[in-house]
Amino acid sequence: MRILILGGDGYLGWPTAMRLTLRGHSVMVADNYLRRRLEREVDAVPLYETPDLGTRAAVFAALTEKSICTREGDCTRHEFVDALIRDFQPGAVVHFAEQPSAPYSMMGAEQARLTLENNVGTTFTLIWALLRHAPECHIVKLGTMGEYGTPNIDIEEGWIDVAHRGRSDRFLFPRQGSSLYHTTKILDTDLLHFYARNNGLRVTDLMQGPVYGLTTTECDMDPRLATHFNYDAVFGTVLNRFLVQAVAGMPLTVYGRGGQTRGFLNIEDTLQCIELAINTPAQSGELRILNQFTEQFSVRELAGRVCEVGNRLGLNVAIASLANPRREKEEHYYNAQHHALAELGLEPHLLTEDVIGGMLERVLPYRDAIDVDSIKPRVQWSLDA
Amino acid sequence: MRILILGGDGYLGWPTAMRLTLRGHSVMVADNYLRRRLEREVDAVPLYETPDLGTRAAVFAALTEKSICTREGDCTRHEFVDALIRDFQPGAVVHFAEQPSAPYSMMGAEQARLTLENNVGTTFTLIWALLRHAPECHIVKLGTMGEYGTPNIDIEEGWIDVAHRGRSDRFLFPRQGSSLYHTTKILDTDLLHFYARNNGLRVTDLMQGPVYGLTTTECDMDPRLATHFNYDAVFGTVLNRFLVQAVAGMPLTVYGRGGQTRGFLNIEDTLQCIELAINTPAQSGELRILNQFTEQFSVRELAGRVCEVGNRLGLNVAIASLANPRREKEEHYYNAQHHALAELGLEPHLLTEDVIGGMLERVLPYRDAIDVDSIKPRVQWSLDA
Repeated sequence: MRILILGGDGYLGWPTAMRLTLRGHSVMVADNYLRRRLEREVDAVPLYETPDLGTRAAVFAALTEKSICTREGDCTRHEFVDALIRDFQPGAVVHFAEQPSAPYSMMGAEQARLTLENNVGTTFTLIWALLRHAPECHIVKLGTMGEYGTPNIDIEEGWIDVAHRGRSDRFLFPRQGSSLYHTTKILDTDLLHFYARNNGLRVTDLMQGPVYGLTTTECDMDPRLATHFNYDAVFGTVLNRFLVQAVAGMPLTVYGRGGQTRGFLNIEDTLQCIELAINTPAQSGELRILNQFTEQFSVRELAGRVCEVGNRLGLNVAIASLANPRREKEEHYYNAQHHALAELGLEPHLLTEDVIGGMLERVLPYRDAIDVDSIKPRVQWSLDA
Repeated sequence: MRILILGGDGYLGWPTAMRLTLRGHSVMVADNYLRRRLEREVDAVPLYETPDLGTRAAVFAALTEKSICTREGDCTRHEFVDALIRDFQPGAVVHFAEQPSAPYSMMGAEQARLTLENNVGTTFTLIWALLRHAPECHIVKLGTMGEYGTPNIDIEEGWIDVAHRGRSDRFLFPRQGSSLYHTTKILDTDLLHFYARNNGLRVTDLMQGPVYGLTTTECDMDPRLATHFNYDAVFGTVLNRFLVQAVAGMPLTVYGRGGQTRGFLNIEDTLQCIELAINTPAQSGELRILNQFTEQFSVRELAGRVCEVGNRLGLNVAIASLANPRREKEEHYYNAQHHALAELGLEPHLLTEDVIGGMLERVLPYRDAIDVDSIKPRVQWSLDA
């Protein structure tokens, strides 16, 4: 199948591109390196440098004799995306092309506007390019479990039957994001919901939990194929940040009481989920929503596990509680369904001690390069406009 | 109180400005005449010409010795809105500044993009101007009953308690718009919901039904103070369109079977509702949602009433069923609550035969100027990209 990946330079985008190519698909990736630019803006550095897409595609081609087509451009611009869709005629588009950081979206008005315009703009531009040039194409969109927030009821997979005053109907599961970033993903879902209903688009919206891990089998083929790995307080996700803190000899920073519970998954499982979604496309007019995670943990539990494994490796890991810079519940009910991807065939890579140990060992070679200052939270959810 | 009205040139904006000024408020209105520009773009003409805001404010001042301050500018531009809020320091902002037509939003990619960027952009720009310069200011936002769609359960006022698997929580009432226009109002609500929760904004989101009527007591003071009245298929709302069709001797165009049921209200009641909302501001952090309509009718019933009254006036009115250009249910359950504004003191002007007759008589003097071609639907909800 011809597959277009928007946001193909990212932590998940690049490994996905390699995986799908090795599965025999014809893959094109597009990116405008926005996240790299934003990293520089906030003085964050990844754990190691990664080459640009052209270079990585060349390395990949030399190793595998398979080519990944790369395009540099802004996916909010309709001229750019229209031409990609019209000329490439993809059977599926994997849409990662969003500003991915909740803290970045909460830094101030300009960062909020960029997040809103980039994320909603990319989704909207893609929708119209498909309506014009490839209406049968399947959109596989990366949403977030954070769209649901932390409701006091079980989280279903996207939809819920509501009985009310003797009648009933089925609705999108209620959503309430805890940052503007999460809220833009809610807006994306609203737009996809409308255009699926009205124009028959095929959409799979993956409600993904925080991803952890440094590598995939394809990344391991050559150091230049490594994925872009952030650990700073703006672009790093919580478990990846803990891994780097453990190696740096810095206490793991738990925000508040650490009772925040989420569904997590290994980067290897993200790739499986995307492949499973592509292999079983949504119907015309369907907004299919799949909850994409494998295990639930509280932040406190995650820190405890990293601490334990790290100390066994002689790392001398401690845990520190910081005043929570975010506005979120620190103790709450959380029980989210995640059957659908398992039924499609997902074989989870769970967070065992071996997995944690293996990730810590992969961080160790970069110990001296870690910028510990960048890990301290510096974005307050309360307004400082 | 100092009150800023965004979209003050509109069908509802200008009468609201006069009403609030005569109530003793200090009123500033802003508009960029977008709707007038879009009317020209689609070759729609209002029933009669209305002067620009500066001229209307001068006429109003000459009659009442009260001034309405007018500003021309684009409310998606943060420099413009920031300066308005910073300098005027309103206690309330009434936000009408949105592209108001569902058919326009469905004409094609460009019109959809304009609707999305204008509507969501204005709301976002306003939010941030308030966070920076007037965080205690009360936003009174015009949403639409169309955000709820036509669910198979009773529509509550904004929120619903959901019991699920032995637990329960309170959520935004599920929303599913039937056009991109309606969907942009859903996105607005999502944004206001987030910034109310996170930053303590005070928000009243008025879920308004289709408004009808040609005038208010203030508009009646002078012909030059009349409100801008559209009747064409793009910018006219259904009952206003029927009134003009009846006078023009053209059959009332019911889309499909006409079982589409909505909550309607008189323009006089819109003004009351806005005043009631302003007089009882939302709390800090509250997204208060009020369903703003007074009576439910199906389109078929509305046409029947206009037909009956029109024929009694000797107008020879017929009803024609057209293939529905929209994608919507033509027969459906509809029962929407609307207690909250009544409890705040709303005294409805119901759609009596006298009211219909009075409206028809107000249209009669313009009979020869009616552009009947502009009333025929020309926007198909199915894609013609």
